[in-house]
Amino acid sequence: MSRFLHSKYKELAPYVPGEQPKGQPLVKLNTNENPYPPSPKVIEAVRGAEAQNLRLYSDPEARQLVNAIAGYYRLLPEQVVVGNGSDEILAFCYMAFGEDGIRYPEISYGFYPVFSKTFSVEGQAIPLREDFSIDIRDYQHAGKTVLIANPNAPTGMCLHPAQIEDILKTNREHPVIIDEAYVDFGAESCVSLLPRYDNLVVVQTFSKSRNLAGGRLGFALASKELAGDLNKIKFSFNPYNVNRLSIAAGAAAMEDIAYFTQCTRRVVATRQLTEERLLALGFTVLASKANFLFAKPGNISGSEYFQRLRQRDILVRHWDIPKIADYVRITIGSEEEMERFYQATKEILQQAQQEGAGDAI
Amino acid sequence: MSRFLHSKYKELAPYVPGEQPKGQPLVKLNTNENPYPPSPKVIEAVRGAEAQNLRLYSDPEARQLVNAIAGYYRLLPEQVVVGNGSDEILAFCYMAFGEDGIRYPEISYGFYPVFSKTFSVEGQAIPLREDFSIDIRDYQHAGKTVLIANPNAPTGMCLHPAQIEDILKTNREHPVIIDEAYVDFGAESCVSLLPRYDNLVVVQTFSKSRNLAGGRLGFALASKELAGDLNKIKFSFNPYNVNRLSIAAGAAAMEDIAYFTQCTRRVVATRQLTEERLLALGFTVLASKANFLFAKPGNISGSEYFQRLRQRDILVRHWDIPKIADYVRITIGSEEEMERFYQATKEILQQAQQEGAGDAI
Repeated sequence: MSRFLHSKYKELAPYVPGEQPKGQPLVKLNTNENPYPPSPKVIEAVRGAEAQNLRLYSDPEARQLVNAIAGYYRLLPEQVVVGNGSDEILAFCYMAFGEDGIRYPEISYGFYPVFSKTFSVEGQAIPLREDFSIDIRDYQHAGKTVLIANPNAPTGMCLHPAQIEDILKTNREHPVIIDEAYVDFGAESCVSLLPRYDNLVVVQTFSKSRNLAGGRLGFALASKELAGDLNKIKFSFNPYNVNRLSIAAGAAAMEDIAYFTQCTRRVVATRQLTEERLLALGFTVLASKANFLFAKPGNISGSEYFQRLRQRDILVRHWDIPKIADYVRITIGSEEEMERFYQATKEILQQAQQEGAGDAI
Repeated sequence: MSRFLHSKYKELAPYVPGEQPKGQPLVKLNTNENPYPPSPKVIEAVRGAEAQNLRLYSDPEARQLVNAIAGYYRLLPEQVVVGNGSDEILAFCYMAFGEDGIRYPEISYGFYPVFSKTFSVEGQAIPLREDFSIDIRDYQHAGKTVLIANPNAPTGMCLHPAQIEDILKTNREHPVIIDEAYVDFGAESCVSLLPRYDNLVVVQTFSKSRNLAGGRLGFALASKELAGDLNKIKFSFNPYNVNRLSIAAGAAAMEDIAYFTQCTRRVVATRQLTEERLLALGFTVLASKANFLFAKPGNISGSEYFQRLRQRDILVRHWDIPKIADYVRITIGSEEEMERFYQATKEILQQAQQEGAGDAI
């Protein structure tokens, strides 16, 4: 740290992203990426004419991408705001709508409390229930902006839009931001509520279900007025926030609905198989509608399980946070990756059992 | 505007980027892009393996790109911070170093006062001298962060590093940020001052001399401590702020020194020819070391000249700001584009002269 840094940031603890190893590990199940490459149409778009045009600024309104998203959701282009990943979109939300504070679940995306510090917003973290579910009563009549990841991370558990609606109804004077990063793997989107709630902001990303984590694309869907606020922030911060190649890639990804459907279905099927296998091995597994499982092994600690997977070159995510330290978050990889993960897990559990038996002698 | 927007942003007037027409106009000389496409090595990098890897997050440390920049400037990787365009880097600077306010020239990059509002930083705009030059005495003993574009925009005029050093010496307790967006077209960089001044931040971009405006890449060079502060902001705002394709493109651009040298030299030669021609036509032309000229026609107003160029499908930039309303900013395009611009300008001046003669009758 230099002596020049703003005093309010001296104690700031940045977000710690999941490890991005330089070499490819055997099985990388730690940052919820999609196991399948982008659509062939995306590859084609990236390799097409746009590379030659890189000398020119990108369209600050990103019309090609905005129109593709608006078309998919049957919304007006004025209801769509695009960003350099949904992290940037969330940052804009904190700047625009944080005046009275923001309430979010205590166990959720680890960036929410970091954003609170970054933008000097009063963050209010509400504990989950014992079973890791969200009690919607905690978010009704909040008197401040509400931010809920649905499905939630790292639990994977979700609320039904009717429950979100109960939150929206009682917070008409503040935005309710629903972070749907993982919604396409079996949960139901709140986009359908947009016509009736001008306080709703739906945030989505291309990083998970659109196979484009490395393209950095996220977006918000909202009423025209609310989207206009977010665009005002964007144009006062970084007007050309999405580059030419990502605009082209994103539009192509949005339009290839068949590929999207195929990939998300495969992930869901693999999640179901993995869940069954883990349950059979004695794990506790939360009911996930995301592209990951949050699971607790029966006979070793979460930390130990994480370490032993890592020794076998399999990366999952583990947090040293008391309430969730027993669990690890396992991204759903390809069929082959999850087979290796399953075999490694069986070995680890057997080994732990043998060690435990040894201890008992 | 919605009723939810933070009260401090209700009056915020966002930055207005230069027009980015959807169709290609005949000659686009309004946003200081490079007239030449990116290096063939950049095209190759973009079309290479990275597209297949887009399902994976980009490296949040962007090591490939950081190392290429550090290598070029013979700095440590820890002294380099990369961003989604230099606008993002400047935004990080406002967040990190704006506590005591930021002083910048009144006529300069139009985004500086917008950033002040966006980040609630006290912005202090200092008028230029009558001849549009910067009086360095205005920035000595500032008692706050100093931000100077060198060369300045839209004037193109520059300070020598020795003059910047005089500012650095008298502001040891605050950063001095030198925005070198246009430095590669004939000005001298302050990078050489980095070993002696831990309060110096040099900001550069790939948008101009590196032919990559559409890739959205900018960077800061500073002491390790100062760069660490900016990275702390980055990791608290958007850790994966540079996408995979731009990392690959940027590294390739940085490494192709021959292409960079060739393109920047051509731009400088075309600028010199254009300057001579405009002077011969009776224009006032400021001494520019950038990839644009700031010029005032002799017998018509700046606004009229801008409009008449536009009617001929030639876009330049004009501001309705009293102190510079007589001038237009002309990006240096390709040889062919500048020939068309020259012929159009001759026609416009002749026409204006005839109209003037007509008025006199």
